[in-house]
Amino acid sequence: MNEIKIGLIGLGTVGSSVLKMIIENSDKVQTITGRRLSVKTIVVRNVAKHRRQVPKDVTLTTDLNAIINDPEIKIAVEVMGGIHPAKEFVTALLNAKKHVVTANKDLIASAGEELAATAKQNHCDLMYEASVAGGIPILRTIVNSFAADYITEVKGIVNGTCNFILTQMQQQHWSYDQALMKAQELGFAESDPTNDVEGIDSAYKMVILSQFSYGAHIKLSNMSVEGISTIQQDDIQRAAEFGYTIKLLGISRRIDNGVFAEVGPVLVPQDHPLATIHNENNAVMVTGEAVGETLFYGPGAGGLPTANSVLSDIVSVTKNIVLGTTGHFFNNYQSSPSEIGNIDPKDVKYAYYLSLKMLDAPGQMLKFTQIVTQSGASFSQIVQTKTDHQTARVTVITHKISKSQLSDIKRALRKVNTIALLAAYKVLQQ
Amino acid sequence: MNEIKIGLIGLGTVGSSVLKMIIENSDKVQTITGRRLSVKTIVVRNVAKHRRQVPKDVTLTTDLNAIINDPEIKIAVEVMGGIHPAKEFVTALLNAKKHVVTANKDLIASAGEELAATAKQNHCDLMYEASVAGGIPILRTIVNSFAADYITEVKGIVNGTCNFILTQMQQQHWSYDQALMKAQELGFAESDPTNDVEGIDSAYKMVILSQFSYGAHIKLSNMSVEGISTIQQDDIQRAAEFGYTIKLLGISRRIDNGVFAEVGPVLVPQDHPLATIHNENNAVMVTGEAVGETLFYGPGAGGLPTANSVLSDIVSVTKNIVLGTTGHFFNNYQSSPSEIGNIDPKDVKYAYYLSLKMLDAPGQMLKFTQIVTQSGASFSQIVQTKTDHQTARVTVITHKISKSQLSDIKRALRKVNTIALLAAYKVLQQ
Repeated sequence: MNEIKIGLIGLGTVGSSVLKMIIENSDKVQTITGRRLSVKTIVVRNVAKHRRQVPKDVTLTTDLNAIINDPEIKIAVEVMGGIHPAKEFVTALLNAKKHVVTANKDLIASAGEELAATAKQNHCDLMYEASVAGGIPILRTIVNSFAADYITEVKGIVNGTCNFILTQMQQQHWSYDQALMKAQELGFAESDPTNDVEGIDSAYKMVILSQFSYGAHIKLSNMSVEGISTIQQDDIQRAAEFGYTIKLLGISRRIDNGVFAEVGPVLVPQDHPLATIHNENNAVMVTGEAVGETLFYGPGAGGLPTANSVLSDIVSVTKNIVLGTTGHFFNNYQSSPSEIGNIDPKDVKYAYYLSLKMLDAPGQMLKFTQIVTQSGASFSQIVQTKTDHQTARVTVITHKISKSQLSDIKRALRKVNTIALLAAYKVLQQ
Repeated sequence: MNEIKIGLIGLGTVGSSVLKMIIENSDKVQTITGRRLSVKTIVVRNVAKHRRQVPKDVTLTTDLNAIINDPEIKIAVEVMGGIHPAKEFVTALLNAKKHVVTANKDLIASAGEELAATAKQNHCDLMYEASVAGGIPILRTIVNSFAADYITEVKGIVNGTCNFILTQMQQQHWSYDQALMKAQELGFAESDPTNDVEGIDSAYKMVILSQFSYGAHIKLSNMSVEGISTIQQDDIQRAAEFGYTIKLLGISRRIDNGVFAEVGPVLVPQDHPLATIHNENNAVMVTGEAVGETLFYGPGAGGLPTANSVLSDIVSVTKNIVLGTTGHFFNNYQSSPSEIGNIDPKDVKYAYYLSLKMLDAPGQMLKFTQIVTQSGASFSQIVQTKTDHQTARVTVITHKISKSQLSDIKRALRKVNTIALLAAYKVLQQ
């Protein structure tokens, strides 16, 4: 058996690219694994629509059983997306002893543990490199190259839509709405962009990255998640004057024995590597106790980049089949859930960018300074400008303060009707 | 046999860090591999000097046979450096059926193929992740995550000493000599820095990276290698005025069926990710036909980062021992040597930064422009400044030209005694 036959579920952008790569690069894969890969069967919703896309010897069908009941097919590739019926499909495939490769982050973030257990029961591989940061081979790198290190932080730009919008706001001086429209025109944002722009997609990815980094599962409900839809052009410009670029970052840190994870806009110093990640690209920064800071950058989405990650999974599964070593977890690192405790907001510290509008009258700045001082915080940079006859704009960057100090400041400001806090974003320091 | 015993050869910065990491992180490694790692024997030149560094139950000896003849020791870690006697040691260890992990780039770049064959004959693993770019897990990533892609270019900052010196020249406005002295003071440069500053160390690493990227071996003698010791502070400043940062890059590209590799100073656009790699850090950019541009960034040297790469090799070997899958090449991708042809300099094209000194008299600029035009080249940017009463400084950036056009320009300029070409550096375009 020198050929490994593959079943594909889904034939959209990623699926078509997977098919293309398997056909075009099978020589190289054969050199490496000694096996020839070929796609035998593809399950789609509409057979007629896809017939001309597909070589004649490939079976196109609407019926998953064509893969499930075919003993020749060893590996199933799920690139249909969505949680249902993808979850039921993957479960059925694993129970039919098919190894499964998926690019489906929603599925893995919400049902990954359960599916991994099903895979293990069936002595099958379940791999999902493409589920995080498209073309960046970050999961396998964490598994293989940080195996002996103690990861203390993983953070990054993991949503291409948001990064495209923020890059356009910065480079073209567009408003959020203009940039979103452009992203939709170019196919970088969906017509309902909520999942992307509100940070939910990033949060899913941070759940998976945290599992690989710390061996334990964070719940989405334990994360603070903020998106980019309220960012003003004015904030982009003021951040630039301070020497920063605003990026949507997912951050997951070990604090004592727990893990703290969140998603939100962050001011990144302009000469920090994360500040140079433009448009739809993604980047993940992994900090290990031994290795220090490392960064992995690449295309976050797109057919071929994502297909490359799918192919690297297929090659791994193929090697395992050849070596007789299938049925192990993609990530063998499991630490006890008790390690993932609730983190005291007092222990989570950042510098913050605060943007405020206040009545242009004597005593307002004093009032604000008193509130900040009472919380034990202090300023590192302040800029005050007039906006019209009645109001002044004040932007400050604080020294490091805790989440609870920030809450104190917010609470106190809400009681002052002459001062409005427009934005409070974390500041990354180098 | 739940314990894997290790023999260590060398106990310098990297060796001590490997020892420390094995002791401190053995719990995590055991979770992942099911085996406990421990160092049993260390071979050093001077036992007395190291006695206090090492736990009492570890044997310290000057005799390699203590590892070779010990059937309990399964993995030998060579971190002594240099080609001889490291090559003889590693050969003897492999012939004694020990798996070998090494951090020795000189050894692998010059004798890698031979040692890999010896390893295979003995059904042993030979791994050397730490030999390129210290803490960046680049080799294993190319093997595992680009397996099905067609890599078209690999380039990067792979020498921490040069990058430290260039960063200091840029940030402190120091001369090359001042920056070198600082690097030596801080231990980032050796007292004889030739190998680093003349680009030889980078060239070794490009040999290994090219082998992994294209499956074929480039000879050092086929590479054009230029270092940083002639870079002037003036060049750094002029490059900055054009919007570029000067970096020492290794570049290896597929051109038709061949591979072209070289090392030299390159002007990198200030908002390109490679421009933000500061000080002793390294970064490798891999371009794949499917995946596009990806970048891997991290510490290029240092005890613990390098030790982390050694440990990731040890963990891989351990997994292979457990699974019974040792004896495969670290990089299974071998393409036929005929693919690595000699590249015609006409086919290698870049934009160039040219820095010239000319007599401040009528007709000089015309003469220079004629020479450039005759070669078929043209300018994209020009700046002319007076330096004193007699000479003018001219810096230009050309449009893309081939290596042969550049040679034509250089040859013609040598015949003009009123114009001196001070520097010609490639320009990276985004």
